[in-house]
Amino acid sequence: MKTYERPVRFEEVDAAGIVFFARFLSYGHEAMESLFSDADGGYVGLITARKIGFPAVHVDVDFKAPLRYGDVITIETDCVRLGNRSAILRYRMFRKHDGVLAAEVKHTVVVSDLTAMQSQQMPADVRRVFEQHLVSNAQSQLRK
Amino acid sequence: MKTYERPVRFEEVDAAGIVFFARFLSYGHEAMESLFSDADGGYVGLITARKIGFPAVHVDVDFKAPLRYGDVITIETDCVRLGNRSAILRYRMFRKHDGVLAAEVKHTVVVSDLTAMQSQQMPADVRRVFEQHLVSNAQSQLRK
Amino acid sequence: MKTYERPVRFEEVDAAGIVFFARFLSYGHEAMESLFSDADGGYVGLITARKIGFPAVHVDVDFKAPLRYGDVITIETDCVRLGNRSAILRYRMFRKHDGVLAAEVKHTVVVSDLTAMQSQQMPADVRRVFEQHLVSNAQSQLRK
Amino acid sequence: MKTYERPVRFEEVDAAGIVFFARFLSYGHEAMESLFSDADGGYVGLITARKIGFPAVHVDVDFKAPLRYGDVITIETDCVRLGNRSAILRYRMFRKHDGVLAAEVKHTVVVSDLTAMQSQQMPADVRRVFEQHLVSNAQSQLRK
Repeated sequence: MKTYERPVRFEEVDAAGIVFFARFLSYGHEAMESLFSDADGGYVGLITARKIGFPAVHVDVDFKAPLRYGDVITIETDCVRLGNRSAILRYRMFRKHDGVLAAEVKHTVVVSDLTAMQSQQMPADVRRVFEQHLVSNAQSQLRK
Repeated sequence: MKTYERPVRFEEVDAAGIVFFARFLSYGHEAMESLFSDADGGYVGLITARKIGFPAVHVDVDFKAPLRYGDVITIETDCVRLGNRSAILRYRMFRKHDGVLAAEVKHTVVVSDLTAMQSQQMPADVRRVFEQHLVSNAQSQLRK
Repeated sequence: MKTYERPVRFEEVDAAGIVFFARFLSYGHEAMESLFSDADGGYVGLITARKIGFPAVHVDVDFKAPLRYGDVITIETDCVRLGNRSAILRYRMFRKHDGVLAAEVKHTVVVSDLTAMQSQQMPADVRRVFEQHLVSNAQSQLRK
Repeated sequence: MKTYERPVRFEEVDAAGIVFFARFLSYGHEAMESLFSDADGGYVGLITARKIGFPAVHVDVDFKAPLRYGDVITIETDCVRLGNRSAILRYRMFRKHDGVLAAEVKHTVVVSDLTAMQSQQMPADVRRVFEQHLVSNAQSQLRK
């Protein structure tokens, strides 16, 4: 599990005064990028130099509590499933000040060659990053 | 079923050169707003004058094909389930130029009092909008 | 002068409840794109097929009145200066419902080869688009 | 002078592959918010509890060099003019890896009562923040 933290930005709310629902996917993407910060070149190196990306094929979000400007979001990221070419990341997003779970996102990504825009075998260093944060089903259940 | 169409914007792509995955939720929200364009005051009137909103409680997205700058998106919106306080909208998002299905989004909203930020009974005119676009399960299956 | 119209979107406001100031540049960009809609391939064709773009070198914005969710923006676009490789576009952004000027933007763009990322001579069809909307200084003054 | 640093995000580029010009204003806003991080309640407290905001009345941007995904931006913020109800902030935005100036933004804000949406006298603690980062004209010239 890796923790990523960031404040809600001034322009991330909507006309209803709460964080716009699409932003939660941006927050999840940032958390995924932070997973790769220890890898060689980081997420940026994967995308720009190695032309390897992780397009989403599925996303599933449970919205539990609203976020507002001024909230800080604490995101706990796990890998809950790991395949040969794909992985499912789970982001549990908490409001920092009261610990309330704001949203839980499941994000299925396919490791892809961005030039051909098709799936590819997962490079060993990418697999290591996912493995490092992999929770077994048992663990995954317990933490629900 | 209601159809809503809009071009991909210049700034809606990401560093991988395709539409950023979070944008599909923005597109879905626009399609939902367009459903209410025939209602009195439209979606804007609901939010700003009547303080009634539709916060998402769940979202489920299947990404099928990438979108790029220059694509026009044709969104077909149906209501696939209607409860007392909630509804599930389904957005089928097609690339206009070749008819390919780019994404299918299921969006569960709860009719809410934005002042108290809690669920409320669905006003009759809101229900009529959802009913007008409601597909029966049978229809819903057939069109899959 | 060309007119472009669009509603303020649900997620374009900020935590102060008004349209976030950066959005006015997005609105201006959309108005610029609409200028090229009559040209062959449009703005999209320029960017994606011909690899010709218009990076900004300067921007100047006078904010006159706030915009809110529910407002429709009417943008009047003129070219107020035309050089060999650059042009200055002026966007006058009005609230449609009361005709109040919300903002005036001056946007200096340099016609650029996006592959080499350097300025280039203006192609004839691009020049024609700017010329078609060019106002003389006299006109420009009068309309202030 | 206060320094604020942040990476370019995955979704902040445009279809030309560089950071979209409107984003520079978002970056400036973040730098302004960071100025107030030492003040009581920070920028968030001003906006949400005290209902005091800083709507822009003018913005002037010189774009000098493009930013790309992977760049880290170092923003140096100064107050270059301080009035009774307004201030001009200057953001000098550098690419961290090579020190190149990417953009210089001048941002004129008016201290405003967000409820009445009109200008107001500057509270003492707000003035102190601006004063702390105020450069004299002489200094301002020298650093150009």
